[in-house]
Amino acid sequence: MTNPIALVTRGDAATQEEWRAALAAAMPEETILPFSVLSAEQRRQADIAIVANPDPADVAALPNLAWVQSLWAGVERLVGELGADAPPIVRLIDPELSRAMAEAVLAWTLYLHRDMPAYAGQQRRRVWQALPYRAPSRTRVGLLGLGALGAAAAACLLRAGFSVAGWSRSEQTLPGIKTATGAAGLSGLLAHSDIVVCLLPLTAETRGLLDGARLAQMKPGASLINFARGPIVVTPDLIAALDSRHLAHAILDVFDVEPLPPDSALWDHPRVTVLPHISAPTDRVSAAGIVAANVRRYRASGRCPEAVDRARGY
Amino acid sequence: MTNPIALVTRGDAATQEEWRAALAAAMPEETILPFSVLSAEQRRQADIAIVANPDPADVAALPNLAWVQSLWAGVERLVGELGADAPPIVRLIDPELSRAMAEAVLAWTLYLHRDMPAYAGQQRRRVWQALPYRAPSRTRVGLLGLGALGAAAAACLLRAGFSVAGWSRSEQTLPGIKTATGAAGLSGLLAHSDIVVCLLPLTAETRGLLDGARLAQMKPGASLINFARGPIVVTPDLIAALDSRHLAHAILDVFDVEPLPPDSALWDHPRVTVLPHISAPTDRVSAAGIVAANVRRYRASGRCPEAVDRARGY
Repeated sequence: MTNPIALVTRGDAATQEEWRAALAAAMPEETILPFSVLSAEQRRQADIAIVANPDPADVAALPNLAWVQSLWAGVERLVGELGADAPPIVRLIDPELSRAMAEAVLAWTLYLHRDMPAYAGQQRRRVWQALPYRAPSRTRVGLLGLGALGAAAAACLLRAGFSVAGWSRSEQTLPGIKTATGAAGLSGLLAHSDIVVCLLPLTAETRGLLDGARLAQMKPGASLINFARGPIVVTPDLIAALDSRHLAHAILDVFDVEPLPPDSALWDHPRVTVLPHISAPTDRVSAAGIVAANVRRYRASGRCPEAVDRARGY
Repeated sequence: MTNPIALVTRGDAATQEEWRAALAAAMPEETILPFSVLSAEQRRQADIAIVANPDPADVAALPNLAWVQSLWAGVERLVGELGADAPPIVRLIDPELSRAMAEAVLAWTLYLHRDMPAYAGQQRRRVWQALPYRAPSRTRVGLLGLGALGAAAAACLLRAGFSVAGWSRSEQTLPGIKTATGAAGLSGLLAHSDIVVCLLPLTAETRGLLDGARLAQMKPGASLINFARGPIVVTPDLIAALDSRHLAHAILDVFDVEPLPPDSALWDHPRVTVLPHISAPTDRVSAAGIVAANVRRYRASGRCPEAVDRARGY
């Protein structure tokens, strides 16, 4: 009988149970128990913790952990909260992430391209009216950020027939798309795109990049998708651009504060689609399979999976 | 001087004028006149009628038609309304139509796959909650109908990573998808599909095909997309299947009566997305070019373009 694995999450019980079920299905040979049901004896026996946004005190109450498996790709907060004495932290490395993000870019680009927000409004008002259609080859999608996510999104959009352009800090060459760099390149991309998709990392340079001046450079009637980080867009400036009808619609998956506070004006703005940070969601079955493989390698070899470099934070 | 071409439409004048202008631009050598402005002499002279949802009495008032060119791909109503003595009916075969329909199948499959209806509901209630995600490879899309539209949709869905199956009246082989025929094949497809997409022609055999018994065969929690013809689905049975939560959602672009009457219960059903027959919007420029080519071949050869088989209805 191996030692139990502690599942340590914070938040709703349903999500914890979904994780427990997925992990149990992926490694039926293991005993996976939520932290709350562990006996004092089991807390001492647990040699692995699988965590999603855990309460640090719960992890600290497991004295004999060989390693901590995060169910999240981003662990910068976990590293800080668990402190220097914590066991090695293993982050989730899932190749599905780029695929899922490219899928989201395509899905919400098609949502705009096929006028889904307008048709939803017509349905509420019981209005039957076909809106003018134009082929995707005549719709220019401008991607901000051409790293792994941007490149995957570009390929996906091109396959669907869209005209695609891209902008990035350093020069990039991608098949079938027009790329640009620098301030003038950004102005040009904004001026010629019907849909602008933000996939930039949040850095000192990108914080507040899409402010009133930049949004004013966008094509009248264009739409914005932000799947990157909230603070890249200056929210009051975006609301002003939507209210003046300069921009048609914004799809926001990321915000300055998350969860988006209940009193935010974005929730019921008629030209804003609010998403709860789900553009690149974790597939629990896929993630559970990756974690199960880590656990089995550890059981067989006694060696921990590669852990996070605490100094870099990732 | 060739005979005039009669343009026979029903509905708003603006749409008729857009068609007239597009057709006149595509064949400036022809005289294209709306039915309402034809003199008695011109009614006798007209040898071609170009029609979109025409009043059958108008078509019957043109005694010397060699053929009738429909501006719609679906002609089953036209065939029935014009009767057995009508001239040959030529339907619009537009390659852009298959592309646009495949795009719509992908767009609204992604709409379901990425939980857009649920996220819209959460936004209205200011709820921040990520919903479980699974990769498209684990989502089975079942296509009913594997003609030109079904084949294009299958290719599009496969490129996006979905698992695809298909059912058709006659046996079809398509790369990468499991196909079936017959009543047992239909039951199997319904039982194993997370999303069922109807692209069937409306015939005596498909009218009422998706009734309570067939909907009950669908996988619990599955969704239905009907982009074909309203009467293929028995609407009260569909509403019952949604109300009992056997089915999660329906996306309906076609209805028993169009426009959907204002008092229809479908408009504000929380698990129905109503679209105003826009899944495969006609690009008027592209369609007018195809019609012009038919007219020119007829003027040069005296032979009518290939007409609809009235017995099959398509």
